[in-house]
Parts: sequence; structure tokens; C-alpha cells
Amino acid sequence: MARPGLLVKGLVFDLYGTLVDVGAVAEACREVAPDPIAFSNQWRAKQLEYTFLRTLMGQYRDFWKVTGEALAFAVARFALEITAEQRQRLMEAWLLPTPYPEVATALPRLKATYLVAVLSHGTPEMLRSGLERTGLWPHFTSVLSADSVQRYKPSPEVYQLALQHTGLRKDEILFVSSNSWDVLGAKSFGFNVCWINRTGGLLDTLGFGPDLVVTNVNELVEAL
Amino acid sequence: MARPGLLVKGLVFDLYGTLVDVGAVAEACREVAPDPIAFSNQWRAKQLEYTFLRTLMGQYRDFWKVTGEALAFAVARFALEITAEQRQRLMEAWLLPTPYPEVATALPRLKATYLVAVLSHGTPEMLRSGLERTGLWPHFTSVLSADSVQRYKPSPEVYQLALQHTGLRKDEILFVSSNSWDVLGAKSFGFNVCWINRTGGLLDTLGFGPDLVVTNVNELVEAL
Repeated sequence: MARPGLLVKGLVFDLYGTLVDVGAVAEACREVAPDPIAFSNQWRAKQLEYTFLRTLMGQYRDFWKVTGEALAFAVARFALEITAEQRQRLMEAWLLPTPYPEVATALPRLKATYLVAVLSHGTPEMLRSGLERTGLWPHFTSVLSADSVQRYKPSPEVYQLALQHTGLRKDEILFVSSNSWDVLGAKSFGFNVCWINRTGGLLDTLGFGPDLVVTNVNELVEAL
Repeated sequence: MARPGLLVKGLVFDLYGTLVDVGAVAEACREVAPDPIAFSNQWRAKQLEYTFLRTLMGQYRDFWKVTGEALAFAVARFALEITAEQRQRLMEAWLLPTPYPEVATALPRLKATYLVAVLSHGTPEMLRSGLERTGLWPHFTSVLSADSVQRYKPSPEVYQLALQHTGLRKDEILFVSSNSWDVLGAKSFGFNVCWINRTGGLLDTLGFGPDLVVTNVNELVEAL
């Protein structure tokens, strides 16, 4: 992809960690964990691992349930005792994520030229809540959940959803994610791919990579 | 499985971490990394993650290559510089793992009554090297590699190999692993499952679990 802008007609964004910060989750962990950062990292890592494992096993459960299962592991791992009310507050942090600062102004600039969609692991209810409560909902033409194919990224069937719902070809889509495994999964599927590397992270070493690397959505707007 | 011994005719073992310690790998890391435990943990975690990701993406590469890719990530992550010779020594540690102390005497006791097999991510070359150099090779009726189905556990297709090669039914096999995700994958597939929990670890919270939990292979012999 020498010039991504030439063919691209649609931008498909990952949500958690890409457009919205799940910092509210880490914040909620302060109430229950002596080391809230280690605790929330463990919760997030298991949440991700369980999406991989359940997809490989053919044992799909939706992202809300997987998030609760991962929380149960993290609570046991850190030998915490939490009340039903604390558990509920921790889970509800996933319903009110915080958009990264540039997102609310950058998305309308993109929508003026491109079809703009979200493709996320979140359940339809999680996505509706998160995008409505943050005011981002109107910026998207399509909001697509892995739940409709009962498996998780980086399975090709999930990326395929973007083709079905936009009517675009693979080479007309630029997939955008901050998650290395998602960047590589989308590239493996055949999309043009942009990696938003907000934190100076390392790309996983699978022997292939994104077409474009930026540090935030404003830089993506400039690059197109 | 109230009494696993009643129906079981074959024992199928995971290898790395279950019958053999990969401590030689951590040992080899001392030469290159200021924090060899953190470095080898990172290497092992990425090795495992890449087997999941490549299987989900349909981008299979064999376990030797995946191990090398994961090493490249760990080296970059810890900002190390290693020579080609150091890299070779690190990789070769995977060819000479250390059997856990009870394994060499416990396996013959099992083989007197049961068909005994290995089902591992390792390539045929890695498995032959590891089992011959440790003297464990004669204890197995079958040595099965995920490489023959070009995907990794916990995919059902890998566990299916055990049925094809032993001629046994699912309920006639007891699958034995120390790895929580492997225990759950085998249970999801339909095997009887024994978890060798050597380190007092936590089972992943997917809502199902093994039929039997022991701390080493001798305890498994006693339980059967």
C-alpha cells in the first residue's frame, strides 16, 4: 500500500484501546486491589486470552461473559474478596470507556470522505452503551460485533463481517487498530492496515506488518 | 469420571511443562539477559500466544519457527543484542529439556497397563531430539506432533490426532497436561482429563475443569 488513500473507501476501527481508553476499568480497580495496575493488567490479559481459547475450542461465550470470567480469575489470582456490588462496578466500567482526546474531532473529518465503521469484540449492548454514553455513536455508519459470528478476532470470519456490512472489497478497506495481534490478523485477512501505536509498543514478530503506523487518529487523517 | 481407571485404556501426555521441565531454556537465558527469569517468561508467553494467533489466523508455522519468532520479540522487548551463536544456544535448549524427577520411573508403570502417548506442539524433530536425549522415547507407543495437522492446541483437530493414532474412543483416553489451557481444551474436546498441577497454579475460569488433579505423575499412577 504505497498510497493508502488511493483505493480506500472505508475505515474500519477496532474500539477498545484504539478509539477508547479502558482506563475507567483500571480506575475502578483502585477500590478493590492494593496494586490496581497489576490487577487490571491481569484482568485484561485473561479477557484477551479467553477470547482466543474459546474461539480455538469452539466454546464461544459473549464478551460480557468472558469479561466476567476473566475478572473471576484475576480476583482469585490476587486472592481478593469482593462484594457483588464491587463486582458490578468493575464490570460497568466497561460500559463507560473514555475516548482518546483526538477521537471526537478526528472521526467527523474522516466521515466526510469515508465510510467509517467499528468492528469490536464487545457485545451489541456493550458497544451501544459505550458509544452512546461517549457521544461517538453518530460518527459510525456501521457498528459491528464479533458476537454475530460467535467467534473472536483474529479469526477471518470476524474481519469478513466488515465486507458483508459495507459492501466494499478488501483492498477498499483500511482497518485501524492499536492492538498488535489485531493489526496482524487484519493484515493476514487481506485488509490494508493502520497501526495506531499510541504507546511506542513493539509489533509482534510474525514476519509481516501494517501498511501505515501512526500515533493517533489525527495522524491518520493527515496521512490519508 | 467417577473412577477414571474403569474405562481408560490410553494415557495421552502433553510434553513441555508436563513431563519435561523447560528449565534448560531459562538456564540458557542467564547468558544473555540481566533478568533471565523475566526474559524466559516473556519468551515462553509469546511462544504460546503466537501458536494461538497463527492457528486463529490460519497462518501456521511450525513450533521451531514460532519459538524463534517469540525469541526475536523477547530480545527486542528487553532491548538485548545477541550474537548468532547465542541465539543458537538459546534455541537448542529446547532440544534438551529435563524430565521431572518422577517421570522416568512412573512411565514404565503406566505402560504396563495402558497405551501411553505424547501429543505436543513440538515438531517431530524437536520431539525426537528431546525424548531420545532424555531417554524417555522407549516409554511411548505413539509420539504425535501438532505439525501433522498444521495447527495448535486447543484446536479440536489436534486432540483428534490421538483418536486416529490410538484407535481408542474419547472416553477411553485420559489426557494429561500441566497447562490449564490444554486441560480445558482437552476437556472441551471430550477426553477424560488429568491436570498435573505441579506448582499450585490456578485453573482458568471457563466454567469447566479436569476430572482429576494431581501434583505429579506418581500421584496419577496411584489414582488409576
